[in-house]
Formats: sequence, C-alpha cells, structure tokens
Amino acid sequence: MGAGVRDSNPDEAGRKTRRPDELSPLDKRIIEHLQEDGRRPFTQIAAALGVSEAAVRARTNRLVERGILQIVGVADPDKLGFQQALIGVRCQPGRLLEVAEALASMPEVDYVVITTGRFDVLIETVAEDNEGLLRFLADRLQRVEGVRDTETFSYLRLVKQTYQFGTR
Amino acid sequence: MGAGVRDSNPDEAGRKTRRPDELSPLDKRIIEHLQEDGRRPFTQIAAALGVSEAAVRARTNRLVERGILQIVGVADPDKLGFQQALIGVRCQPGRLLEVAEALASMPEVDYVVITTGRFDVLIETVAEDNEGLLRFLADRLQRVEGVRDTETFSYLRLVKQTYQFGTR
Amino acid sequence: MGAGVRDSNPDEAGRKTRRPDELSPLDKRIIEHLQEDGRRPFTQIAAALGVSEAAVRARTNRLVERGILQIVGVADPDKLGFQQALIGVRCQPGRLLEVAEALASMPEVDYVVITTGRFDVLIETVAEDNEGLLRFLADRLQRVEGVRDTETFSYLRLVKQTYQFGTR
Amino acid sequence: MGAGVRDSNPDEAGRKTRRPDELSPLDKRIIEHLQEDGRRPFTQIAAALGVSEAAVRARTNRLVERGILQIVGVADPDKLGFQQALIGVRCQPGRLLEVAEALASMPEVDYVVITTGRFDVLIETVAEDNEGLLRFLADRLQRVEGVRDTETFSYLRLVKQTYQFGTR
Amino acid sequence: MGAGVRDSNPDEAGRKTRRPDELSPLDKRIIEHLQEDGRRPFTQIAAALGVSEAAVRARTNRLVERGILQIVGVADPDKLGFQQALIGVRCQPGRLLEVAEALASMPEVDYVVITTGRFDVLIETVAEDNEGLLRFLADRLQRVEGVRDTETFSYLRLVKQTYQFGTR
Amino acid sequence: MGAGVRDSNPDEAGRKTRRPDELSPLDKRIIEHLQEDGRRPFTQIAAALGVSEAAVRARTNRLVERGILQIVGVADPDKLGFQQALIGVRCQPGRLLEVAEALASMPEVDYVVITTGRFDVLIETVAEDNEGLLRFLADRLQRVEGVRDTETFSYLRLVKQTYQFGTR
Amino acid sequence: MGAGVRDSNPDEAGRKTRRPDELSPLDKRIIEHLQEDGRRPFTQIAAALGVSEAAVRARTNRLVERGILQIVGVADPDKLGFQQALIGVRCQPGRLLEVAEALASMPEVDYVVITTGRFDVLIETVAEDNEGLLRFLADRLQRVEGVRDTETFSYLRLVKQTYQFGTR
Amino acid sequence: MGAGVRDSNPDEAGRKTRRPDELSPLDKRIIEHLQEDGRRPFTQIAAALGVSEAAVRARTNRLVERGILQIVGVADPDKLGFQQALIGVRCQPGRLLEVAEALASMPEVDYVVITTGRFDVLIETVAEDNEGLLRFLADRLQRVEGVRDTETFSYLRLVKQTYQFGTR
Repeated sequence: MGAGVRDSNPDEAGRKTRRPDELSPLDKRIIEHLQEDGRRPFTQIAAALGVSEAAVRARTNRLVERGILQIVGVADPDKLGFQQALIGVRCQPGRLLEVAEALASMPEVDYVVITTGRFDVLIETVAEDNEGLLRFLADRLQRVEGVRDTETFSYLRLVKQTYQFGTR
Repeated sequence: MGAGVRDSNPDEAGRKTRRPDELSPLDKRIIEHLQEDGRRPFTQIAAALGVSEAAVRARTNRLVERGILQIVGVADPDKLGFQQALIGVRCQPGRLLEVAEALASMPEVDYVVITTGRFDVLIETVAEDNEGLLRFLADRLQRVEGVRDTETFSYLRLVKQTYQFGTR
Repeated sequence: MGAGVRDSNPDEAGRKTRRPDELSPLDKRIIEHLQEDGRRPFTQIAAALGVSEAAVRARTNRLVERGILQIVGVADPDKLGFQQALIGVRCQPGRLLEVAEALASMPEVDYVVITTGRFDVLIETVAEDNEGLLRFLADRLQRVEGVRDTETFSYLRLVKQTYQFGTR
Repeated sequence: MGAGVRDSNPDEAGRKTRRPDELSPLDKRIIEHLQEDGRRPFTQIAAALGVSEAAVRARTNRLVERGILQIVGVADPDKLGFQQALIGVRCQPGRLLEVAEALASMPEVDYVVITTGRFDVLIETVAEDNEGLLRFLADRLQRVEGVRDTETFSYLRLVKQTYQFGTR
Repeated sequence: MGAGVRDSNPDEAGRKTRRPDELSPLDKRIIEHLQEDGRRPFTQIAAALGVSEAAVRARTNRLVERGILQIVGVADPDKLGFQQALIGVRCQPGRLLEVAEALASMPEVDYVVITTGRFDVLIETVAEDNEGLLRFLADRLQRVEGVRDTETFSYLRLVKQTYQFGTR
Repeated sequence: MGAGVRDSNPDEAGRKTRRPDELSPLDKRIIEHLQEDGRRPFTQIAAALGVSEAAVRARTNRLVERGILQIVGVADPDKLGFQQALIGVRCQPGRLLEVAEALASMPEVDYVVITTGRFDVLIETVAEDNEGLLRFLADRLQRVEGVRDTETFSYLRLVKQTYQFGTR
Repeated sequence: MGAGVRDSNPDEAGRKTRRPDELSPLDKRIIEHLQEDGRRPFTQIAAALGVSEAAVRARTNRLVERGILQIVGVADPDKLGFQQALIGVRCQPGRLLEVAEALASMPEVDYVVITTGRFDVLIETVAEDNEGLLRFLADRLQRVEGVRDTETFSYLRLVKQTYQFGTR
Repeated sequence: MGAGVRDSNPDEAGRKTRRPDELSPLDKRIIEHLQEDGRRPFTQIAAALGVSEAAVRARTNRLVERGILQIVGVADPDKLGFQQALIGVRCQPGRLLEVAEALASMPEVDYVVITTGRFDVLIETVAEDNEGLLRFLADRLQRVEGVRDTETFSYLRLVKQTYQFGTR
C-alpha cells in the first residue's frame, strides 16, 4: 500500500453507475484504516495512502454524510451492566416496512434488520435489567401497530463484537 | 452538565466492589460523548465536563484497554455490497463455550453472543455474496467441532445500526 | 422401441375413463423424446417411434393444448444473476384456493403448489436482488388478501434443475 | 424490438469481467423468445431481432453448452399421474455440499437447491405414488451419507409452473 | 378363565360410584372376546365364561347402547384405495369445544380427539385422492368457524391398525 | 340396491391387474353393510344384495383373510379408564421402515402409520395411566433401535371414533 | 366443618387399596389448613377439625414422612435478586429417566418434571445472574450424560406463586 | 454461623437504596432456616443466629408482609391424585401484562411467570383429571381476553420439588 492509491476511477464520472453507493479504492482504504482505529489521525492515514490530509478528511466527511460510515465509541453493553436481547418480530401481512421503520425510531432499539427465515424483522435492544426489558416488550414493542408476535433471545454473554470486516 | 462531573466516588477505593468493570460517573459521561462522535476532540469533551484534557485522554485510554469501549469506523455492510446474515447455531451438549470461542476467532464473524431460547449462539457474518455465504457455512462454520446445526437468516435490508444507547 | 408403438388403446374410446388426462403409450414416448431435447425434429421422433411425422406433430400440439406439456427454454436464474427464493405461505382459514390463484397470477411468481405440512402453499419467485425480493415480499405477496404469514428460503446455490423424469 | 439489437458490447472483450456467465443483450433477447416458445424457428427469432439465423443458432447452442439454457419439454407431473413432493433436508454439519451433490445425482430428484432457513437443502422428487415416495424416502434419500433428517411436503395441486421470468 | 366369572360386584349397586362407565369383570371378559373376533357367537363366549348366552347377549347390547363398545367391520382404507391423512388443528381461543363438535359431525372425518401439545385437536380424514383431500381442507375443514390453522400429515403407509388392547 | 349386485367383473380374471387388492362391487357392498353393523347376519346382507348367503360368507371370509377387513369389537379406551396418546416419532436416517415394524410389533401400540410432515411415524398407544405412559415412553418406545426422538400428544377427550367411511 | 371430621374410613384397613398414597378426609383437612399458613398452631387446627392436637401432630408428621407434604419457607427468588429460568430438556432416546434423576440431584435445580410435548423434561433453576445461568447451562446441565439439547426460558417477572390448590 | 450474625447494615437506613426488597444478612439467615423447615421454632433459630426470639419473629413477620417469604404446606399434587400441567401461553400484542394478571387471579393457576423465548407466559395448573384440565383450557384459560394460543405440557411424573435454594 506504500506506493499510494490514487482516486482515479474514470468510470465514476463518465457513466451512469448502477449502484449510487459505489466506493472508490481510496474510500475503501480510508474505511479500513478507521475500522482499525476510529481516532487514527488523518495525517497518518494520508501518509500511509500517499494522498493529502485534506483529501482524507474530505473523503471521510463525505462517507459519513452519505451514511456509509459512522465513527463512534462502541461501548460493551455487558460491561455497562445492561441486559441486551435480540428479538425476532413477526408482522401482520403488508405492514413489514412500516413496522421496521417504527422500530428503528425507538431509542431503546439499536439494530433493526429485515431478514429471510422464520422472523420478518430482527432487532437488538438494550435495557437496564429484566424489568426494563419486560417494560420495553409489553409497553413499547408490542404496542407498535402491525406487530403480530415477538420472540426474545436474552443475552447471556457477548463473546465478540468487531467492525473490522474490511471492504469488498 | 455544565457544572462539571467530578470523579469522586469514594466507595470505589474504599471497598471491594463486586463488579470489576464498574464505571465512574466521569467514565460514563466520556462514553456518551464518544457514542455521539468518535472523533470529538478531547479538549471539547474536557471543556463540556469541566475536567482536564489529560484526564479525558487517560480515562478514554483506560476504557479502551479494559475492553469497555472501542472507537471505530463502522461501515454499512449493505452499502459496501456485502451479503450479511445472522446465523443461529445449536451446539452438541457440553461444547457451548468452546464453539462460541471458535466462532469468535473467525475473521468472517463480527458478532458472537450466547443467548437463551431456541438457539445456543447467534453470530453475524459478512460475506461477499451468496456464494461466499455458502462457502462460509459449508466449509467453515459447519466444520467447527461441536456445531450441531445452523439456521441462516439472510439480510434483506439493514434499517438501523446505532451505538448511542447511553450508559446506565 | 424400434418396432414402433401403435396408438391403439381400444379402451380409450370404448369406455368412460375416470381420468380425462390419461395418455396413450405414443403420447408418453413423444414426451420422453422432448424431455431429452425440446427442439428434436419431429421427423427424427417419428422415425424412432415408427409413426408418421404428422402424427407426432398432431399429438405434440394436442399435448400442449391440453396443458400436459410445455416446450420451453428454461434459463438458469442463478446464471442470469437473479436472486431466487422459495417462500412458504400460510393462509387465513378458508382462503387457500383464492390465495393460490392470486399468487399464480403474479408475473414474479413462477411456481405455485399447494402442499401438505407446515405451509399451505409453496411458491418460487425470481427477483433482481435482495432489495427486489424485499419489495416483492412487502409490497406484493403480503398484500394478497388471505395471506397470514410467509417464510422465505433464499437460494444460495441451485444445484440441479432437470425435467427428464420420464412418464409413468 | 423491431430495429434490431446488435451484439456490440465492447467491454466484453476488452476487460476481465467479474462474472464469466455474463450475457450479451442479444443472448438475453434470444432467451426471452425461447422462454415463450421453445420450438420457435430460429429464422423467426432472427427476423424479430434483426440478426442472421446463423447467429441465433450459434448463440443458442453456446447458451445450451454453457449450461445457461435448456430447451425442454416440461410435462405436468400431476397430469402424468405422478405424486410429487418437496422435501426439506437437514445435513450433518460439514457435509452440506456432498449431500447436495449426492442428491443431484439421483434420477428420482429433479430439483436440488441449497437455501437459507430451517432446511439446508430443498429437493423436489417425482414418484409413481405414495408407496413409491415412501420407498424413495426410506431406501434412497435417508441412506445418503450425511443426511440428518428430512421433512416431506406432499403436493396436493400444482397451480402454476412457468419459465417466462425474462432476463435481468 | 374356565371356572366362570360371575358378575357379582356388590359395590356396584350398593354405593354411588364415581365413574358411571365403570365395568363389571364380566363386561370386560366379553369385550376381550369381541376384540379378538367381532362375530364370535354368543354361545361360544357364554361357554368360555361360564354364563348363559342370554347374559352375554344382554351385556353386549348394554355395552353398545352405553357407547362403550361398537362391533364393526373395519376396512383398511389403504387397500380400498383411499388417501388418508391426520390433520392437526389449532383453534381460535375459546372455541375449542365447538370446533371439535363441528369436526365430529362431518362424514369425511372418522376420528376426532382433543389433545395436549402443539395442536388443539387431531382428526383423521379419509379422502378419495389428493384432490379430494385438498377439497376437504379448503372447502370444508378450513371453513369451520373457529379453526385458526391446520397442518396435514398425509399417510404414506398404514402399518398397523388393531383394537385388541384388552381392558384395564 | 334391491335389484342385486352381481359379482361379474370379467377383467378380474382376464388380465393381470396392477392392484392386487382391487375389490369387486359386491365386496364393497358387503363391507358397507358390516361397517354399519359388524354382527349383521349374513342372510340379511344376502337378501339386501340379492345374492346367496354362502356367497356373502365366502366373500367376507376372503376379505378378512386378505387383510382388507377386520370385524371387531372396538371399545372406547376413554370409557375403559385408559390414558391414550398419539406419539410423533422421528427416526435415524435409513431406519424408518425397521422402526415402524418394531413399533407395530408392540402390544401397547394399536396404530402405526408412516406419514409426510414433521414426524416420520405416528403411533397411538393405550396406557393404564400417566405412569404407564411414562414407562412405555422411557422403557419401551425410546429403546427401539433407530428412534431419534418422540413427541407425545396426550388425549384429553376422544370426541369421535367411527369406521363408516364407505368404499371408494 | 364444625362437627368434626372423624378419620374413620373403614375401607382403608379392610382391603388392599390400589393407591398407597391415598389420603383420609382428616389428612386432607389438615393439608388445607397448612396450605393457608404453614405455621398455624396444631392446637388451632385441632380445634377447627374437632380432633386432638396429638392426632393433628401425628398425621402431619406422617404426611411429611410419606413425602406428601413439606412445610417450608418459600422465598421469592426474584426479590432475593436471583435470575431464574425454566429449561426444556430433550434427552437421547432411552435415557429419559436417568437424565431426570441426574438433574434432580443437582442443587441448582429446584424443580424437575417429566412431561408430554416438545420437551422430555422441564426443570427450573435459580442462578445468581446471567453469568451464573450460563455456567450452569454450559458446565453442568449440558454435561449430564444423555442430554441431547436444551432451550432456556429466562424469567422476566414472577407474577404468581401459590400452593393453596386444596385437595381433591 | 455460631458467632451470631448482627443485623447492622448501616447503609440500609442511611441512603436511598436502589432495590427496596434488599435484605439484611439476618433476614437471609432466617430465610435459610425456614427453607429447611417451615415450622422450626423461632427460639431455635434465634439461638442458632445469636439474636433474640422477638427479633426472629419480627423479621419473619416483616418478610412475610413484604411478600418476600411465605411459609406454607406444599403438598405433592401427584400424590393427591391431581393432574398437573405447565401451559405456554402466547398473547395478542400489547396485552401481555393484563393477561398475566388475569391468569394470576384464577384459583386453578398456582404459578405464573413472564419469560423470554417462544412463549410469553408460562403457567402451572392443577386439575382433578384430564377432563378437568380440558374444561380449564376450553372454558377458562382460552376465554381470557388477549390470549392468542396455548400449548399444554401434561405432567407424567414430578421428580423434584424443593425450595432450599438458599439466598444470594
């Protein structure tokens, strides 16, 4: 990676790409640096990639604005004393997308994904304790219009949580 | 929060606490700042909390070393063109912990949690595409000693991924 | 098969058969030829079976008209870049047949079968990609009146697809 | 489609494509014609697409050789008096691919697909009757090394079977 | 059994029994004879049990009238060419008994039992063929008020059917 | 039915029939009489069908010998104070038929059927009480070689048990 | 109940009873008093039932010795800060009773019952917290010989726990 | 335990505790004594713990009033001839808490707990026999507003029932 990765994909401007989120090789290298350390100085990344610090900063800002990257402090909920759970949600037919949106708008819910298989939506929630988890289930989640039923998987131990899966 | 949060929990030194991961109020305030923005300058956090920049830096480093916090660039796997999946794993009796450890050691696996319910372990994996997901299932996951069966939930749309769940 | 198969089932005319779709031995031999190669010239089939080319042509047309046979180019959806899925559908009681008919009328659905077991209807769908599959599920399938819930099995690899099962 | 679709994709020769099965626009138009009628004369397709009959013939042969297209007589198993079933198969861990290959090699099995979800492999089989289905289950399928269990969905009525899903 | 079983249970008349269906020892011996052969002559049974033929006849008639015994020709549905199925039925809450009664009133249903476990009611049905089974499911069973869903287990082979379980 | 049903199926002798169990119309009429009342005198049946009593007797004996019909006293196990249960059995792959045979040979088991769906074999058992049912499960059923797991549906109320499903 | 319940069941001595645990009416009245309050003075119970205090004491001791009654302080595990769970256990065929005995011998397990349905054995366990529950599952329960798999239902709130179900 | 456990937790009065149910060490020791024997004289407990009998009595009364402890005669329902069952209940979304309360108010229900996993609420019921269990299911449980479905696990044998799980 020493020789420097230029951001010179001529196709990007010249034709209508199918995927608007398509990333340049420079974007990908920057993401990989930040996956390793979210606070790595831009000057250090710039030196490693052979581009200017301004380019790294601009690209990074652009990635964040486009919603492709977030640079965050990820705390271990277990060590904060939280009770986490994954919850499988089944929806009334025809209300899948609106349920997913409603769940995504809840502050207690940090992860929402629509999947294949025996559930329609899987969410992750972070609660103070079992009583907080019950209140979330009974008073919040199950009151969302279009939720048909839910099945809770309570976390006993969080073994791995990483974000260094590279780029494609 | 303007008046400054002193880190003066006298109990912490004076008695044997049950939970070694226990956090001071200052730790918690710092975590909350970094949950909002992982690159927020320490000087800015220090000013908001009424403590020195050195204290914020030292505390943050300590939180990272203790494994309570990681500050990372989290890319959206969907937008990188990856095929993600959550996989429920059932283990042979008596091999739960070793299976969880083996899965955690795989670079294709970014999340491993032991849960209650109809699965023993839930993992998240990031693959290039369906063929890559199949190769992971057939050649990697199902060859782990002690895995009894697996059930894959393929991601159709990642709706929310956030880390701002605060502290307790 | 050299000696020629006459189509001389005297029973067929002489009595009221229970099954209107009943096939003569000649019908079956023609089907078997076309199962092997849908474009095999009728003259070649006629020679092999010891009947006239006109008889083969007429029989074949009749089989197609009766809905017993279709002669088609079957493309491999995988190789066309499609995302296929099998979907198990459960219906509201009393609406099974109308749901099956509604699903059969959808161009995105290429296979509909009513089965015994834990699903009422199984369908196969062909989508552009995961996003297309989700739109089909959320906006089309689950909006069919009488659909109670659905469970999607996403294709990871199509290993075999053949039509040479002979005749009975 | 009257003006003729030239097969002039300059990219195809000029760069290393990621997907070896990639199809030209002409390939796709030919497939669509044959999806409608597998015996449509090449001269008719050639005229519709504005290319030579030799080009259509050569392309078609190439598609068949590459395994992208098969042109076949597809009989309705129901009307032939067969008992069909879809069977969900779960495999012993680590034997998924070999089981799928073994099933694909069986003449009684006309469809094999590896899927996500509660089964590892889904197959379709065509049997003479219930007794034939039972013999297939007991004496053939369940004797494949690596099969852990099976669940049979017996067909009550085949409502739709089509192959006209177009190209992407 | 040679010495004769008198029907001399003095308790039966003398006190209010808890179970109105309680059987005398003679009743039980007669039942056992008829379980072995429903057409065994009463004179033969009477001789074996050391009682009069009139007593056997009267007792038998009483058992039939009380609904404790039926003497019937039980044909093997498989050998009659029928398609049988066991169907698990789940009911809307609060309608269990009325659904069971409605199912019991249907001539296509020869067995209705309310059970513990994942179904509320299990029934057995006898149909002409798969199409008849489907019509029963779609047009009859699923139209019963209070039926929530059904799961059909189609019979592949009836291996044993006996009624010689003796008495208690 | 007064005019008499002759047993004059000339096909039966003249050609090799596919189904050895095929029944003549006279057989079917006799079965229907005995389904209504297993002890109906042969003279009465003979008169109703317009044939000789000897013919009815001979036919009936033949049906019983061929295993198509049994004429039995069927007692209501509920009223005898028994605890009945239906048990779903799953087998180790490749041992389905031998398990079914082993179960059929047990006197505690009065019904064995191989089915499609989530179980491989369904059996009915008659036990003295819950303790007897447990002993059957633990000491007998689960010790059969090839049984993988079992799921018991305990009878709460037997609502209907009839054998008058006619002939086809 | 004022007139006094004599313990004068003459049948008890005079004939071989089927159920050795059978209780006299006096036994039942005493049980009902102690179900209401386990520390109710025997003199008070004796007065209410019209028998001597010695009789109540002797009967009670006998009930405890026979294992029919235990008089205990039942603490609310929730309020003691415990994490409770119900766990469904499936056993390897033929090992049901030995697994149940092994589980019953564990001090962490306060309830063991063999049931019908989708589990073989249901147990209740009391753990310090989630980590303690995990250690019990991984290191204790799943290491019992003959355990095939387990499914944990974690308690969110214990709503009712009573023992006043009377006698029959 | 000989030296006496003083109840001298100065924190208890001095600060607002998070958990109102928090127990002093003396409370816990008393509970443990009563878990072993609910009728153990207070004088004996007082001597063992080195406190006054009045203190033990007052503490015990307080624990009972606070709902932390009940001292009861627990009869073995099996030996009383009852038919017990555990029942998994699923609720209509948003009615979980009211269903749990309604079930808790029923005298036939002795245990109600809200759990994670495939059921929302688990209850235990005590019935006279199978018919009583059915009447409870059909006429009582399933008529509770908000109950969606139920699954009954009938008890075959109660192997262990203890309350000596100590304190935390």
